[in-house]
Amino acid sequence: MPTMEHVTEVVRAGGDHIPDLLTRVEERLAELARDHGQELAAHATSTIAAGGKRLRPLLVFLAADGEAGDGLVRAAAAVELIHSATLVHDDVLDGASLRRGIPTVVATGGRGAATATGDLLFARAFAELTRNGRIDQVRVLSDATSALARGELLQRADAWDATVPVVRYMCRCELKTARLFEAACRLGALEAGTDADVLGDFGRRVGLAFQLLDDVLDVSGPAARTGKHRGTDLLDGTVTLPLILARERDPGLAALDPRTIDSAAAAEDVCDRIAATGALDEARGRALEVVAEAKSALPASLSERQRTALELVADGVVARYA
Amino acid sequence: MPTMEHVTEVVRAGGDHIPDLLTRVEERLAELARDHGQELAAHATSTIAAGGKRLRPLLVFLAADGEAGDGLVRAAAAVELIHSATLVHDDVLDGASLRRGIPTVVATGGRGAATATGDLLFARAFAELTRNGRIDQVRVLSDATSALARGELLQRADAWDATVPVVRYMCRCELKTARLFEAACRLGALEAGTDADVLGDFGRRVGLAFQLLDDVLDVSGPAARTGKHRGTDLLDGTVTLPLILARERDPGLAALDPRTIDSAAAAEDVCDRIAATGALDEARGRALEVVAEAKSALPASLSERQRTALELVADGVVARYA
Repeated sequence: MPTMEHVTEVVRAGGDHIPDLLTRVEERLAELARDHGQELAAHATSTIAAGGKRLRPLLVFLAADGEAGDGLVRAAAAVELIHSATLVHDDVLDGASLRRGIPTVVATGGRGAATATGDLLFARAFAELTRNGRIDQVRVLSDATSALARGELLQRADAWDATVPVVRYMCRCELKTARLFEAACRLGALEAGTDADVLGDFGRRVGLAFQLLDDVLDVSGPAARTGKHRGTDLLDGTVTLPLILARERDPGLAALDPRTIDSAAAAEDVCDRIAATGALDEARGRALEVVAEAKSALPASLSERQRTALELVADGVVARYA
Repeated sequence: MPTMEHVTEVVRAGGDHIPDLLTRVEERLAELARDHGQELAAHATSTIAAGGKRLRPLLVFLAADGEAGDGLVRAAAAVELIHSATLVHDDVLDGASLRRGIPTVVATGGRGAATATGDLLFARAFAELTRNGRIDQVRVLSDATSALARGELLQRADAWDATVPVVRYMCRCELKTARLFEAACRLGALEAGTDADVLGDFGRRVGLAFQLLDDVLDVSGPAARTGKHRGTDLLDGTVTLPLILARERDPGLAALDPRTIDSAAAAEDVCDRIAATGALDEARGRALEVVAEAKSALPASLSERQRTALELVADGVVARYA
């Protein structure tokens, strides 16, 4: 995620109506957590009320420049619910005990409750968006949700395979991350009645850059800023761009079987070797290129305010801890 | 599930167009399995292509008496996709290795792939139904999907609690099973342009009876017909109506802590003790009452053919292995 300071700057650039919209989506998420059974409410503080920077809702709002109706708030809540659902399911699979410093649903309720909580969040996302009465919006959300799950499946299928090609890795990032960013921008544009394809494309690229940089940060750290040890992807068997690129440069890394990385210390050691090849700079460079493409593809017709805010978001996803 | 012979009888009663509709939904499910990435395709034979009696699609078709458009096939496929998604997630949580004699996704692909496969099936269900272009249908499906997840959460929250009241147990059945049966009937009625509330109510009651009888069969067996050992619910900590009723009649059972049932043999023993109280007959009697209510609430305006077919379905869910 971009730093909180960066998000604050984006909010300021987006216009006076943005803080109010963010408050309304927060209130709506709290309502959803409260009003769908005590079982969801019991887990709400670990899911949709757990905070986060609300980057996807923010994209919905910025894409809808100026628009501020309830439909926009529902679209933003729906996107955040889908995002939350995937986090809850990820935590089940990773057996994660904490997220953002709060005990996860799987830690407090067990695997069954956490799987069902994720399912409920998916369902509530569609229920929420359906209230907008627009089938085109539901289509955007269901396609993005399918993409997320396909990306997750692809990543599982690729696990421990160090020979995964760059194009396949990029496809995974596209599905797993970029498509929900795209959906956020599309929904905002649809609510505002502007061109959803153009802003959707912007969102997709920003999401891609976001994931690219996320994977760089997993190797580069610093752990104090990312909140997790370096090399967690390596320990999970998730082969990302830094290792893919580093293998082309270091025969020792090319010969390494990821399955032999069996401790946090071993993972950190591999991170150091990846960094020594210069692969992190190259991966970061690719993220910057994608951001530049995203910005240059923004149409001339945007308001100055909208352009400035969107460009700040794009810069923010790659500026993290630089 | 009703026996296959029973389903065949229902199909015959439903009209000459029903076999064709069932074939088309089967083809559509096969297409969906094939066309959404090799990752889903790899698991398709364990999920949506794994067969089953397609009871929910059948309800969609019967509720739409005479109607046979593509929209109806999509609605039926969507309902079956949601059902399949919940089965895939259930298998993850139960660590089940076989379903309908076929290795489960979790057995072949692991927990991660199975969780993501379930998520993908949920998403594809909404994508499929969205193609009908009707927001009222999407609302029906998202509400039913929410109910399913809430039911699952409720069941997890109630696990191992033998003192769960009947009303709470019924609420769980309603959420976990009845609401998707209701959705199937509603979607059929919406496609046919008839009263969705009336047929939805019928479907809800049939689903409730279905679950009540399912819980009786878990205690009564015979294992050779149900395909699982007697007492699997007891071993899972799922307290159902037979035990709830039996506890009122047998102080020994009332004093039993479900957590102490620690083997298949111990579970079978408890099943015998539940049967000895007469609780199975009472539970089966309640299922029969619900079916009678379902049938008597069918409006006089139905065609003879539709009434006959729907009544056969209702009878079928409680006639299993009688």
